[in-house]
Amino acid sequence: MTSFEVKAIGRVESPLTDLASAPRQADEGAPEAWLAFEPDMLEGLRSIRPGDQVIVITWLDRARRDLLSLHPRGDTSRKQEGVFSTRSPHRPNPIGLHRVEVTAVEGRRVRVRSLEALDGTPILDLKPVLSEEISER
Amino acid sequence: MTSFEVKAIGRVESPLTDLASAPRQADEGAPEAWLAFEPDMLEGLRSIRPGDQVIVITWLDRARRDLLSLHPRGDTSRKQEGVFSTRSPHRPNPIGLHRVEVTAVEGRRVRVRSLEALDGTPILDLKPVLSEEISER
Repeated sequence: MTSFEVKAIGRVESPLTDLASAPRQADEGAPEAWLAFEPDMLEGLRSIRPGDQVIVITWLDRARRDLLSLHPRGDTSRKQEGVFSTRSPHRPNPIGLHRVEVTAVEGRRVRVRSLEALDGTPILDLKPVLSEEISER
Repeated sequence: MTSFEVKAIGRVESPLTDLASAPRQADEGAPEAWLAFEPDMLEGLRSIRPGDQVIVITWLDRARRDLLSLHPRGDTSRKQEGVFSTRSPHRPNPIGLHRVEVTAVEGRRVRVRSLEALDGTPILDLKPVLSEEISER
């Protein structure tokens, strides 16, 4: 397979350090976290403001890449599904998508609400939410 | 910076072959397309059904990675913004997110509605849309 190189443009700083106790989704009690970007990414952040709805794209560096089927949410009472029908971190390219609200910006550090990613998780990208992707909540 | 290797798990097959004429977003006249997955990804696709709302994650292989500010939508009458406040393909990690509906599944080929990615674009991941991400449209 063709491959490409992605780079960590920053890291998540979060009180979540333990995979077992981390919430599986942001609406399941995830805490506020900081997105700490690399110094040379500052220019790309210059239009980010508190209140922005953004999608954080992460590299789930503690995930397995060799699973193609699994029990959703690790619940063995549920039948196995193909990984592309689940949001499991375990997948061939362990890319995480996290929709969050920006609550503060301090230089190259961006504070966000309800992020379920673990402390130290590499950040690959940050994108604004488009209007047609806006949540009903 | 730390880097990671992502692999192309498939390719987009689309009538869109020309960057200049491609729509910038899916709601701007994007055509149906096929997601043609690698043979060894078949097991991961087994729960995908027509009607599924999914997020296709692509590698925008024709993008520039050295831009941190730009005019949104290439419109020089608009002031430059940091790339992380835009959905421009040009960004340090040129990862594309495309929300689409599955219209057909034929083995390891998945047909989707309204995809603005160019023919040949590498696919990195496929995820179901979560209920809180459901569009208002």
